Amino acid sequence: MVDVAILGYGTVGSGVVEVLTTNKESINKKAGKKINLKYVLDLKDFKGDPIEEILTKDYDVILNDPDVKVIAEVMGGVEPAYTFVKKALLKNKSVVTSNKELVARHGAELLQIAKDRNINFLFEASVGGGIPIIRPLNQSLTADEIYEITGILNGTTNFILSKMADEGLDFETVLKEAQDKGYAERNPEADVEGYDACRKIAILSSLAFGMHVDFEDIYTEGITKITDIDMAYAKELGYDIKLLATSKKQDDKVYAMVSPIMIGKEHPLSNVNGVFNAIFVKGNVIGDVMFYGKGAGKLPTASAVVADMVDAVKHLETNIVSFWSTKKMKLTSVENISSRYFIRVASHSDRKVKDTINNIFGDVEYIKGNNKMQEVAFITQADTEKTLSEKVNQIKNMESISQVNSIIRIEK
Amino acid sequence: MVDVAILGYGTVGSGVVEVLTTNKESINKKAGKKINLKYVLDLKDFKGDPIEEILTKDYDVILNDPDVKVIAEVMGGVEPAYTFVKKALLKNKSVVTSNKELVARHGAELLQIAKDRNINFLFEASVGGGIPIIRPLNQSLTADEIYEITGILNGTTNFILSKMADEGLDFETVLKEAQDKGYAERNPEADVEGYDACRKIAILSSLAFGMHVDFEDIYTEGITKITDIDMAYAKELGYDIKLLATSKKQDDKVYAMVSPIMIGKEHPLSNVNGVFNAIFVKGNVIGDVMFYGKGAGKLPTASAVVADMVDAVKHLETNIVSFWSTKKMKLTSVENISSRYFIRVASHSDRKVKDTINNIFGDVEYIKGNNKMQEVAFITQADTEKTLSEKVNQIKNMESISQVNSIIRIEK
Repeated sequence: MVDVAILGYGTVGSGVVEVLTTNKESINKKAGKKINLKYVLDLKDFKGDPIEEILTKDYDVILNDPDVKVIAEVMGGVEPAYTFVKKALLKNKSVVTSNKELVARHGAELLQIAKDRNINFLFEASVGGGIPIIRPLNQSLTADEIYEITGILNGTTNFILSKMADEGLDFETVLKEAQDKGYAERNPEADVEGYDACRKIAILSSLAFGMHVDFEDIYTEGITKITDIDMAYAKELGYDIKLLATSKKQDDKVYAMVSPIMIGKEHPLSNVNGVFNAIFVKGNVIGDVMFYGKGAGKLPTASAVVADMVDAVKHLETNIVSFWSTKKMKLTSVENISSRYFIRVASHSDRKVKDTINNIFGDVEYIKGNNKMQEVAFITQADTEKTLSEKVNQIKNMESISQVNSIIRIEK
Repeated sequence: MVDVAILGYGTVGSGVVEVLTTNKESINKKAGKKINLKYVLDLKDFKGDPIEEILTKDYDVILNDPDVKVIAEVMGGVEPAYTFVKKALLKNKSVVTSNKELVARHGAELLQIAKDRNINFLFEASVGGGIPIIRPLNQSLTADEIYEITGILNGTTNFILSKMADEGLDFETVLKEAQDKGYAERNPEADVEGYDACRKIAILSSLAFGMHVDFEDIYTEGITKITDIDMAYAKELGYDIKLLATSKKQDDKVYAMVSPIMIGKEHPLSNVNGVFNAIFVKGNVIGDVMFYGKGAGKLPTASAVVADMVDAVKHLETNIVSFWSTKKMKLTSVENISSRYFIRVASHSDRKVKDTINNIFGDVEYIKGNNKMQEVAFITQADTEKTLSEKVNQIKNMESISQVNSIIRIEK
């Protein structure tokens, strides 16, 4: 028998209790030992709840109990999670977590502590809740040099974009519906501005490339500027607009970026809709691999936390190696990244504006839209981010252009 | 340093050598030890090949070398592979294999030998070449009770069906092209009759449900009867026809089946085209998860073999537990499985035939086709396989029906 504790009895924490209860028998069989939930830490009271008897408000009780070998941290946020987790590891207790802020910020350090003490720090649930990705990256793709990871890593924004595409609604309307349904937070910034996806791609990149990728270095753009007009154009072009988090290695340089991208129907990520997430990995020998599942939600996330608890129980005194050194990776500037761009500009005169566009962007592909605004939409040839931004600055100053309405990258 | 050997220097074997050479540095780092390829077993000569110096025709040389700790069996076929692998395990050498015939037939026994001796028998490459699925099933989905696995598990048939759908060609034409391109064998039976997919779903079901599923018990139907006319109807209906291998657990009963199925565009497997494969898993807490990648091919398969070699090297004296007991699972008859069916019948008189159809099948959905044959196509309501086959026998004997041209299951 192995005693375990859960820190935090919110959505994920109560999901973990539910999973441990529902699948008790098969989980114990797979762990090879009986998993005994000895404590749940939470500052609130839960009168009448089955966990009431094992609830504690004092973390030291858990920390000082030598029988507790595995702790699941599902509180979220950097503090006090970081302090709690570090203390646990220093007491030779393995920790599993669903906390992406914690892992993105302190993952390398916490992994090192676990390694030094021959215990484990596991975080499958921190990226793409119900998608097994961390373990496959660490253990299944070991024959490969990975050179690209691209994912739809945020369920809220994917739900919003899918609904905008399906129903022709605008961003604000769909966001409000998502908030009403509980799919989006009252303060939706972390999701819609891409910050959540940014932390997740930082974690994946660190594991794939073996060095610490600081999430603050990653170019991040959210979906708040995507309009129903952009969606209508995308549909016309046979494209989907998705918030993609990507990191690529080219000539030993790595760049990472989170931004809305237009992708074609033949792209495996284009069929990933609603609250589903998917992560696409390219290896130099395995080729393209994709992992698909629910990116969030109480039970999918709890499933990943419990799978990590099973692994931690199976490896009580063996470190499951990860390659994420504390050495910081210097990302290359996105300025050098090249793609084609979808651009919409508002104009005073249709003929003149096309001359201007062609003068600045060269040959472009004009798109007929269904909307009645006085604007011109076109797709550029491949340009680097740097050149594109120079050209956009140029066009902004032209007399025939009143405004640049939209710029969206297109996956080559 | 750990000495390893490869049995078989065909497509996969030479791929394994290539991967070990190309990614040498990162592979050694991930294995935590230098992997030294000491022998390659093959009966042919390979004059001038880099492996010429380590080539042997005598298996006993490998078997009796105590330094060889890990053997990769990539010969294919049941014998002599089975004898070789068993002997290796009994000499306490871990074995990794890409051989689905071997694993489907003797997997449970070989796993047990490995377990008893605290070594490993690993077979990630035996199902879906480049798709990490065995390790995720064993290690990532441990918190779940799995109740369904459905996959596109054969690249050749998926290539043929995709091409038939895209280009409106008939089966024979596309098969010939696939053979000319080397995507299909000269004798294509194992692929097009579904036998290959059958062995793979037997392996996956055994792991998911923890008991031995005998591939000979699995109802198996290939794609040879699918015509360009069926494809045209499917297109009209917005469906894809895919060869699906599936096993489902309902009320503690498990059934398994390989057959062509019509699936809607919203099904995650519908976008899996060409030589790509994908495996869809449903767990009671994680929900839907899908794994996607190249199902075959030299390098993707070799990548999986080498990843298993890395794992075997990391766990030289620790058994990585699998739950596949030698106890045989009794599958429930597919007779009780219910679906809707697409049916085409040739008729002498259009009005009369519809009366006959409605008398036997009740309310059905008639489909307008573009072909000029005198036939009627319709979709039935949900029926069990047993009832369906009784109704089909009935209709075959009706005067107004000259022939039943097609019956294809539709995923509910």
